[in-house]
Amino acid sequence: MDSGIPSLENLIDHFAALPGIGRKTASRLAYWVLASSDEDAKEFAKAILSAHEKVRQCPLCHNLTDSDRCGVCGNDERDCSVICVVETPQDVNAFENTREYRGLYHVLHGLISPIDGIGPEQLFIKDLLKRADSEEVKELIMATNPTVEGESTAMYISKLLKPLGVKVTRLAYGMPVGGNLEYADAVTLYRALTGRNEM
Amino acid sequence: MDSGIPSLENLIDHFAALPGIGRKTASRLAYWVLASSDEDAKEFAKAILSAHEKVRQCPLCHNLTDSDRCGVCGNDERDCSVICVVETPQDVNAFENTREYRGLYHVLHGLISPIDGIGPEQLFIKDLLKRADSEEVKELIMATNPTVEGESTAMYISKLLKPLGVKVTRLAYGMPVGGNLEYADAVTLYRALTGRNEM
Repeated sequence: MDSGIPSLENLIDHFAALPGIGRKTASRLAYWVLASSDEDAKEFAKAILSAHEKVRQCPLCHNLTDSDRCGVCGNDERDCSVICVVETPQDVNAFENTREYRGLYHVLHGLISPIDGIGPEQLFIKDLLKRADSEEVKELIMATNPTVEGESTAMYISKLLKPLGVKVTRLAYGMPVGGNLEYADAVTLYRALTGRNEM
Repeated sequence: MDSGIPSLENLIDHFAALPGIGRKTASRLAYWVLASSDEDAKEFAKAILSAHEKVRQCPLCHNLTDSDRCGVCGNDERDCSVICVVETPQDVNAFENTREYRGLYHVLHGLISPIDGIGPEQLFIKDLLKRADSEEVKELIMATNPTVEGESTAMYISKLLKPLGVKVTRLAYGMPVGGNLEYADAVTLYRALTGRNEM
């Protein structure tokens, strides 16, 4: 599908480098950009530069922010005794969407994954231990994904936290709300059964 | 899913404006851009600006190009007696991929679609009539999509071309190669039957 136009092919390459965007979709997006107005193309390029320049990590929790502290750490009304440990800034947004959690966060920016060459030292685990060592913190919620990497990262961190005498919890496993027992996998069903609660 | 960071939300808006990209995918792409290196983000923005600036329409066939004429019109070895009329520059690439067609193209940049407010005057039909009126041109292939709009645009143009005495053809309808008779729709099967050829 080579158009033979270097600058167009270069733009397609950039779109194709994005996650989940194949060559065909990238080509469609690039042609769309070409067909858009001068103004729109300039605004798009500016949005990329501006977001990349302004957005940085919060020095406390490593969530993304465009100011000195993120919206959660900078909010005095949040409960400083609980820290929810997540993999990505998107996970923070997912929890904020529940509008139920009032504690703080800690973003690891990855999971321990030897196969991808990511060890504990590449994540913000040291910072987490420092935060957990303060008097204020009473509980840490391990909220990494329920995958092999998420599970082992949660286990690894909880072992480091135990000596500090802080309470470490893990998200509940079970049936997703609205799910169907018939289509639930055996492991999830088993976890839902063993984790059953009195009504 | 609002992150509360204006520059990030702005970038998500821009990605979400692309065709086929929903809010959730746009958010994933924006976070990916933020996580990429300074260099990569700058190159991406530059690719958008550069492609939008350099790529323009070929004055003859309205295909996209970054020079005075497109690769097809500028090639002396192409057969100037046949013009293939297509909707988009992507369609030109699709035909070039067959490596069988040696004639020229004419890109309409759209189809007649009253529901979208697109009439014949918004397409490059006048230019096509001018090209068709030259002595050299012997055949015009209507290669618009086999949809209602594609069909009616092809009909409209062929009626305008008839008085010029030039031969007007339409792409063959029939079974796609590798297709399955069982799953073919009735209209396609009927067209394949009526358009049957001697073996």
